[in-house]
Amino acid sequence: MELLMDKKADEDYTIVIGCGRLGANLANTLSDAGGNVLIIDKNKDAFRKLSPSFGGLSITGDATDLDVLQEAQISKASVVVAVSNSDNANIMVAQIARELFHIRRVIARLYDPERECVYGEFGIDTICPAVLSAKEIDKILAETSLSKDSSQEEKQ
Amino acid sequence: MELLMDKKADEDYTIVIGCGRLGANLANTLSDAGGNVLIIDKNKDAFRKLSPSFGGLSITGDATDLDVLQEAQISKASVVVAVSNSDNANIMVAQIARELFHIRRVIARLYDPERECVYGEFGIDTICPAVLSAKEIDKILAETSLSKDSSQEEKQ
Repeated sequence: MELLMDKKADEDYTIVIGCGRLGANLANTLSDAGGNVLIIDKNKDAFRKLSPSFGGLSITGDATDLDVLQEAQISKASVVVAVSNSDNANIMVAQIARELFHIRRVIARLYDPERECVYGEFGIDTICPAVLSAKEIDKILAETSLSKDSSQEEKQ
Repeated sequence: MELLMDKKADEDYTIVIGCGRLGANLANTLSDAGGNVLIIDKNKDAFRKLSPSFGGLSITGDATDLDVLQEAQISKASVVVAVSNSDNANIMVAQIARELFHIRRVIARLYDPERECVYGEFGIDTICPAVLSAKEIDKILAETSLSKDSSQEEKQ
C-alpha cells in the first residue's frame, strides 16, 4: 500500500464505499480507466463482484469507523463515493470525508429522495436512484407522446 | 371505474405496477399532470405513499395474475410501467403487456443490469437504477477532472 501511495501520490485517488452492484461497477470502471481505486465493504464476499482485471485495493471493514478510513488513507483521496446499501452510513461517511478530511469531491447515494436536498449545502453531491429512474421514465414517456403527436399530424 | 373509462376512453391511460418509492412518485406526477393512472400493488399499505392529490385508481393484487390485469383493463392502456421490487415480476408483467395485450409502450425496472440488454428486442424499455446512478457519478467525476484541468491550466 505504501508503495502504491508513494508512486502515485500526486495522481487521483478514489475511495469507493460499498461493493454492491453500483460500487463494484464503479470501481471496475475507474480501475480499467487507469485510476487509483480503493474499495471498502463490511462483507468480504462482496468483493467477488469486482472483475478479475480490477487493479485497485480492497479493505474489509466498516467505513463509518475512523480507523478504517485512516487505514484507507482517506486524507490522500481526491474523491470519495459512498454507495453502500445504507443511507445512514453513506451520509455519515460523506460528512466525515467532507468535514474532517476536506475531500474535494464527495458523492453519496441516498435511496430516500427526501433527504437528498439537504446535503448539497454541505458540498456533498447526492445520487438518488428513484429520482434518476423517474426522470428516465419521464423522458421515455415524453418521447411516446411526441411520436403520437407527430403520427396524429401525419393523419391530418 | 366504468365511468372513468367511458369518459376518458380516447385519452392516455397508464398502468403502474408497484407502489414503491418510484411507482408512487410516478403515479403522483402523472396524475397531477392530468393523466389517467391506475396503480397496482400486492400490499394495500403501499398506497399510503400516494399523495392526497392522487386522482387515479388503485388495485390491490398480484399484477402477474391475468385476472388482476384484466380488472385493471390493461387492454385500454397506452403505457404500462412495471416498477415493483421484483425483477422477475416486472419482466413477466412487461412481457404479458407487450405480447398478449400489444401495449404500445412498456417500461420495466430491472435491478440486475445483466438482464437489461435482453428486453430491448421485445420492444420493452428497461430502466436500471444502478446503470443510471453509475452514469450520473461518471458525469460528476468528469466535471471534477475538467475543473481540475482548468485550474492547472490557470497555474501554468
